[in-house]
Amino acid sequence: MGHLTHAVGAYIAGMNYDTIPPAAIGAAKNALSDYAAVTILGRDAPVTQLIASFETIGDQGEASVLFSARRAAARSAALVNGVAGHAHDYDDVGIAFHPAHPSVAMAPAILAQAESMGASGRDILTAFVTAYEVWSELASRDAEPHHIKGWHPTGTFGAIAAAAGVAKLLRLDAQAAVRAVSIAASQAAGLVANFGTMTKPFHAGRAATAGLMAARYARAGMSASPDIFDHANGFLAAVSPHGKVDFDRPAHFGKNWHIVDHGISIKLYPMCYGAHRILDGLQQYLGRHDIQADKVTEATFHTGPSRVVSLVHTDPQNALDAKFSAEFAVAASIIAKRVTLAELNDRFVARADVRALMGKVKRELDPARDKGSFNQQPDDQLVIKMRDGTQHTLTLAAPRDQAISLDQDTLWTKFHDCTAAALHERDARRLYETLQSLEAMSSTRELTGGAARAVAIGG
Amino acid sequence: MGHLTHAVGAYIAGMNYDTIPPAAIGAAKNALSDYAAVTILGRDAPVTQLIASFETIGDQGEASVLFSARRAAARSAALVNGVAGHAHDYDDVGIAFHPAHPSVAMAPAILAQAESMGASGRDILTAFVTAYEVWSELASRDAEPHHIKGWHPTGTFGAIAAAAGVAKLLRLDAQAAVRAVSIAASQAAGLVANFGTMTKPFHAGRAATAGLMAARYARAGMSASPDIFDHANGFLAAVSPHGKVDFDRPAHFGKNWHIVDHGISIKLYPMCYGAHRILDGLQQYLGRHDIQADKVTEATFHTGPSRVVSLVHTDPQNALDAKFSAEFAVAASIIAKRVTLAELNDRFVARADVRALMGKVKRELDPARDKGSFNQQPDDQLVIKMRDGTQHTLTLAAPRDQAISLDQDTLWTKFHDCTAAALHERDARRLYETLQSLEAMSSTRELTGGAARAVAIGG
Repeated sequence: MGHLTHAVGAYIAGMNYDTIPPAAIGAAKNALSDYAAVTILGRDAPVTQLIASFETIGDQGEASVLFSARRAAARSAALVNGVAGHAHDYDDVGIAFHPAHPSVAMAPAILAQAESMGASGRDILTAFVTAYEVWSELASRDAEPHHIKGWHPTGTFGAIAAAAGVAKLLRLDAQAAVRAVSIAASQAAGLVANFGTMTKPFHAGRAATAGLMAARYARAGMSASPDIFDHANGFLAAVSPHGKVDFDRPAHFGKNWHIVDHGISIKLYPMCYGAHRILDGLQQYLGRHDIQADKVTEATFHTGPSRVVSLVHTDPQNALDAKFSAEFAVAASIIAKRVTLAELNDRFVARADVRALMGKVKRELDPARDKGSFNQQPDDQLVIKMRDGTQHTLTLAAPRDQAISLDQDTLWTKFHDCTAAALHERDARRLYETLQSLEAMSSTRELTGGAARAVAIGG
Repeated sequence: MGHLTHAVGAYIAGMNYDTIPPAAIGAAKNALSDYAAVTILGRDAPVTQLIASFETIGDQGEASVLFSARRAAARSAALVNGVAGHAHDYDDVGIAFHPAHPSVAMAPAILAQAESMGASGRDILTAFVTAYEVWSELASRDAEPHHIKGWHPTGTFGAIAAAAGVAKLLRLDAQAAVRAVSIAASQAAGLVANFGTMTKPFHAGRAATAGLMAARYARAGMSASPDIFDHANGFLAAVSPHGKVDFDRPAHFGKNWHIVDHGISIKLYPMCYGAHRILDGLQQYLGRHDIQADKVTEATFHTGPSRVVSLVHTDPQNALDAKFSAEFAVAASIIAKRVTLAELNDRFVARADVRALMGKVKRELDPARDKGSFNQQPDDQLVIKMRDGTQHTLTLAAPRDQAISLDQDTLWTKFHDCTAAALHERDARRLYETLQSLEAMSSTRELTGGAARAVAIGG
């Protein structure tokens, strides 16, 4: 058996709650809370309805669907819940090496399996951290982001990580855990070309359900390569853009915790993550300085070309365009003093004052700023000139969105915002608190027991 | 919309039975007949039982399972039937550009969808040829076999081809057909590292069910990239070993028929396809010359190194090893005068005369023979020396296994051999004849209506 594949199997089999540092547990709880929020937000999204319409959903089944009283087979729940969680692209971002959406691939599989077996909160947290560490360790092996060749890591690595998490819940031994991730690797899929379509959130749900089934197949004795990560015709070789895979160095498992060292970022604004530096820097600055929109003459955003590659709309015409616009991020922040779901709205985007201010935003691109990722140095800059000749110069650093350090007020505010249309505040609060004290939950069934209101989905 | 993706969509939407040449129809009928035979053969394979145990199978459902009276949802039938068809690796080989197993990915999806809607035999044949042509056209775009990077084309292209076939059955228009193949491309997966494990046949079943669902999702309005094959971060770019993709040349659709020009090979021997040159050349020779095993002193197989890369066992210890042994192919042919399922048997492999003759087989490797694929020039050679000093020199050319020209006796002999354990000969014959006159069948339901005996499967 190859050393890396063996290390992954041994890590999954050997992990237990007591060895996980408190910071990692805290990050996992915050990620799971946020995952629940965005999944409930995605209940009515057209893609959720469409995918759900092909599943058998009712009041029976192993697992709950969309944190409601509706239930389905675990694999259907994992699929629908993953799609809903990614439907608005408001879910978390992580895995420093090639950024992806970890929770929407891992959590739906882990929660569905946990619910089907009545696993405890500690079991869920252990599975979640295990899955995250496996994903990060594997992703760290390639010097190049898989995106540049077309692979969406949420779909590819996501299936493997989901299998790792479910394998942990099933208490598979090292050999069976290897089979689980190996079967999942043969289902790893998802293409960047499908970004911007309903097929993108489908990648997340598909990864979740594929990982869940891979672990179940492995438990049932299905055979698979014991070298899937080390093999010259295995997963890492296949998805590598130019073969810059480090197969040799020992695994970091147990020495470092990826989820602590460079973990999950929780989106605090319902926009493309590329705009979060602007949004978070500007929100903080506006808390200390009053900037009146009608007195702005020009706002210049100094950044690197690669950092705005996803911010494709300079003059957005609707809410979907606006999600991918630096100009909207600046204008909406100054005008509304916040950017929440209420501002990602066609009417708000069309407002005369918003359009006028967007027209005053300029981009100044400097390739030297491209070093580092969104939550690393070097910083970007925003210079806002006022009619009276004064100017505001803001440094745009990493957003305050690390799951490991996020304060409860901020997290709850987003949770409430995401769930307000679907849940009574009392029910939302109860679900949030259950998730925030997950280590005390004796059975996953408490997550949905009466806390969440049923929601109708297509049938 | 990219020109290639557009051409695929337009081709699917525009195809109709009357434009297909008779040779292509004949090849498709032979491939579907053979697919049914190997699927019935694979009914009791452990991997079939395992995958089936996770599906809901009974006497109700859209489609039949394993050509029996048992039924399931179309996606479950497509999955189980694809796995069974590939369980023994005795199914057909095709797509000249990067060889794969076309029928086990395409046929289960097409038949399950056809049965769910009561489609006619002509509908099935049209869908099958459409799927094959789309697969071939796409595969022909890359100068390198995807295998060398780790991708199993049966799983990757198979999902797309299955979607193309089901899209045709659903009579999707060009735009919806594009969405179908684009959603399927985001599910394209399967790794060479999993060859030799139960996960390999799973690739076929997974491709079938993924393709089926992709077409159904597309019909329901799911959006997906209109440039999935042309896009720099699309399917062809992602799976290409070194980016040698020809995005520019016009599609051949309608001018050439890939299934006629370089179509499907139907395995006439239950062994690795790498041994089929030896097997077929030697069987033909033995029909004209009597070679007594105990009088052979040496048999030398002259071939190219790359042609025997899969024939890994020089001294096979059991039937599974023997499937991948040139030495067994020679010895079994001479001793039994045939190589059928009865010879791929641990007892036969262990027989003293078989072991003795295998020990006399030598390989003589010459890189100059590596040009061309298994069914192309240059030919290999087998030189058999006898105790009396005489020798037999055989030219080993392309096997007589092209679906387009295969004679009915040969095809029926294999069909009967594959189905003998599961079906009465009368029922097998009726099923075979239905498949061989598919253009006259008014509803797919005739395929299973009383013709095939039910078989118990787990779950």
